[in-house]
Amino acid sequence: MTPALDISHLPGFEHATTREAQVAAFRHLHPSDIAEVLEQNHVAPDQIVEVLKSVGNHIAVEAFGQLSIETQQACLESYNDKTMLRFVENMDPDDRVDLLKAVGDDVREGIMPLIAQAERNEIRRLWHYEEGTAGAVMTTEYAMLPQDLTASAALEKLRLQATNKETIYYVYIADEQRRLIGVISLRDLIVSRSNATLTNIMQSNVISVPHDMDIEAVSANISKYDLLAIPVVDAQNRLLGIITVDDVLDIIEAESTEDFQRISAVLPFDEQYFKRPLTRLFFDRFIWLAILLVTSLLSTTIMEMNAHVMQRMMALAFFIPMVMGTCGNAGTQSATMIVRSMALGEITLADFGRVLRREIVMGLMLGVALGLMTYFRVFLQDHDVMLGCIVATALLATLMAANLIGALLPLVLKKIRLDPALTAGPFIATIIDAVGIATYFQIAFGMMKLF
Amino acid sequence: MTPALDISHLPGFEHATTREAQVAAFRHLHPSDIAEVLEQNHVAPDQIVEVLKSVGNHIAVEAFGQLSIETQQACLESYNDKTMLRFVENMDPDDRVDLLKAVGDDVREGIMPLIAQAERNEIRRLWHYEEGTAGAVMTTEYAMLPQDLTASAALEKLRLQATNKETIYYVYIADEQRRLIGVISLRDLIVSRSNATLTNIMQSNVISVPHDMDIEAVSANISKYDLLAIPVVDAQNRLLGIITVDDVLDIIEAESTEDFQRISAVLPFDEQYFKRPLTRLFFDRFIWLAILLVTSLLSTTIMEMNAHVMQRMMALAFFIPMVMGTCGNAGTQSATMIVRSMALGEITLADFGRVLRREIVMGLMLGVALGLMTYFRVFLQDHDVMLGCIVATALLATLMAANLIGALLPLVLKKIRLDPALTAGPFIATIIDAVGIATYFQIAFGMMKLF
Repeated sequence: MTPALDISHLPGFEHATTREAQVAAFRHLHPSDIAEVLEQNHVAPDQIVEVLKSVGNHIAVEAFGQLSIETQQACLESYNDKTMLRFVENMDPDDRVDLLKAVGDDVREGIMPLIAQAERNEIRRLWHYEEGTAGAVMTTEYAMLPQDLTASAALEKLRLQATNKETIYYVYIADEQRRLIGVISLRDLIVSRSNATLTNIMQSNVISVPHDMDIEAVSANISKYDLLAIPVVDAQNRLLGIITVDDVLDIIEAESTEDFQRISAVLPFDEQYFKRPLTRLFFDRFIWLAILLVTSLLSTTIMEMNAHVMQRMMALAFFIPMVMGTCGNAGTQSATMIVRSMALGEITLADFGRVLRREIVMGLMLGVALGLMTYFRVFLQDHDVMLGCIVATALLATLMAANLIGALLPLVLKKIRLDPALTAGPFIATIIDAVGIATYFQIAFGMMKLF
Repeated sequence: MTPALDISHLPGFEHATTREAQVAAFRHLHPSDIAEVLEQNHVAPDQIVEVLKSVGNHIAVEAFGQLSIETQQACLESYNDKTMLRFVENMDPDDRVDLLKAVGDDVREGIMPLIAQAERNEIRRLWHYEEGTAGAVMTTEYAMLPQDLTASAALEKLRLQATNKETIYYVYIADEQRRLIGVISLRDLIVSRSNATLTNIMQSNVISVPHDMDIEAVSANISKYDLLAIPVVDAQNRLLGIITVDDVLDIIEAESTEDFQRISAVLPFDEQYFKRPLTRLFFDRFIWLAILLVTSLLSTTIMEMNAHVMQRMMALAFFIPMVMGTCGNAGTQSATMIVRSMALGEITLADFGRVLRREIVMGLMLGVALGLMTYFRVFLQDHDVMLGCIVATALLATLMAANLIGALLPLVLKKIRLDPALTAGPFIATIIDAVGIATYFQIAFGMMKLF
């Protein structure tokens, strides 16, 4: 007998201490909850498949679709049989492509010939869309009807197609060339006279997105127009697929968790705070802190190299936390603005020159204003004009550098196909710190020779 | 004649240089686009109302609902007439309450008696839900039907109610005490046999949320179960309202923008990067940087007070950027974890003691591990055992302090009813820096006496 899983602390599983009782308890769960229980308890792939086999076909297919792609991949790679084929055939087309891209070549080549022809064509069609674009997350299971149907005939058709479509709450109307010419919500369809034709009740200026639009911009559109789904079209306005609001919500949630964890430099994890074993969490956190510590020792080395400058004027050291902090904040400000504007499609790579010019002016303005503030602090408290001039000038130069790096690095990262949001992360911040300290001493040393 | 608005650079407005041409162009826009054009061009409140009056009742009501609450407030406060009454009466109930809470007492007292009785009762019912909870964002315009209806009778009822409901894609079933006993999606209703009763086709284990649940946790539920709307219930499981996925999406988008801007310390703004005038952006950024600069001068003062320690051992200064950086990272790590777990409802104020114990152990483990790394760096590069011991011990103490502050401050902020996410902001980081530098020198000074 397979041993019971460690899930007796979950509501509904308190008395399910045998494997049989657990299977019975699983049958009462929502597919999303089944997936969550399996993920959070690190159930082994072959055991996951066993559990899914026992809960009934429809629920099993749904629950498999809710597993993380890593878990799906582990299942498929360790348990390549008829059950898995059924799961894969019933996945959402976009998730299926992601999974098939993730698994090893041999696994993919093993399963592809077994997949039904229609699904195989679907996979080929979706294969080439770039990750993070509308094309890569759209589903092809939408409801499309010809324009000359009556409302009641349309309702009858929807009734028959309902189970195979991701949503039937919007019906799309295309012409003979598959060009998108209209949309009708199920709500409008229901309140229409039953003999009205679709052409008369459809909305003809359809809000749609191109297949290469960034998923963040797609989500901004769905949110702005309060849609439940948005159609994706090619350059000829031909309907390629739709993106539903629940997919967008999942993507946004995952991205915001990821962003937060990237900013805070913890390796991404999904578990609850108290559930994560202390030693594992320690490792997650230590590895990042250690990398950042080693990087930040660059600053120490630069300061050691400038020991002679500090020996002549120790007060310079007192202003290092202030200069570093202010420049770090300015860099984060510009980086956040640019990253967000890029995500919303307001700034593209072509704007590099405009951003450069704008941020040079901005850095100069901020540097002069903040430099003056610093000068007066030094003058009033330390009565030292020379120190004041040195610190203020060094702040100006360091701030301009940090501000420019923050604004331009996201564009550079995008150009070399890395995530622009990395700029706001602590690794880059640590490097900017070192550059900042070097600039600070360089300017201070130069100024000291002047006085 | 009222002057034309500055919108001729927008697509569709290129030739709309007179006011009349603009009104004509507005008539072709989606309500969300009308709201966006009016907001982004800072159109004056009385002009906004003029534009809305000219575009037709239904679209005007929709567009008004899409304006930001600040703009709605300005309109209502400057233009309290019949048109505004119509706008307010037709708003979503939850947005209407937010607006009425925002306007001055005299404006509210002026408009309340004019609002129809049913809406007025609605407003009173929604008034007391705490901001950020399910109760405060739910709408009361949901579809509810008795359980003994047949599917075809239910469809007929929905057809009649459709225009007054936020969504008809879910139908809720309640018993005589208004307790929620079932839910049917319109999709399931459509595919059912027309003489089946709702009791037989409804899903009886309804996923719902309590009215005091945090909106982030509500959104996690909607996302997890792929819902279009989620019912909100009281302690007796009576249906109070529903929250739709588009409201959740708006809230998440607004919060993530706000979070980003809080982290990056730019005053929140909605405009596009290139559209914002440089001088305004300068002011937004300068004000925050200046506040942070003044705060960070605390560190300078602390270092000045410890000048005697540095005079005896200048090398201590070299490690300040490393110690500050590492402690800042550790503090951000713990703060981010706790803030997120609080938002998802995994950690409550009652867990203060558990978090404290857990993070003391974690801080000790991280401090010892990173302290050892630092010791070996100093020993290998500078061959100075004493310096190594001092820096490593100071790092350990500072790191434990920063880690604890990061973990506990979110709970403290929540207790005094401030946003826990403030912990991750730069203001608090600057204060933690100063505390860190003080701790560092305190420990170093104490250790120097030992050797």
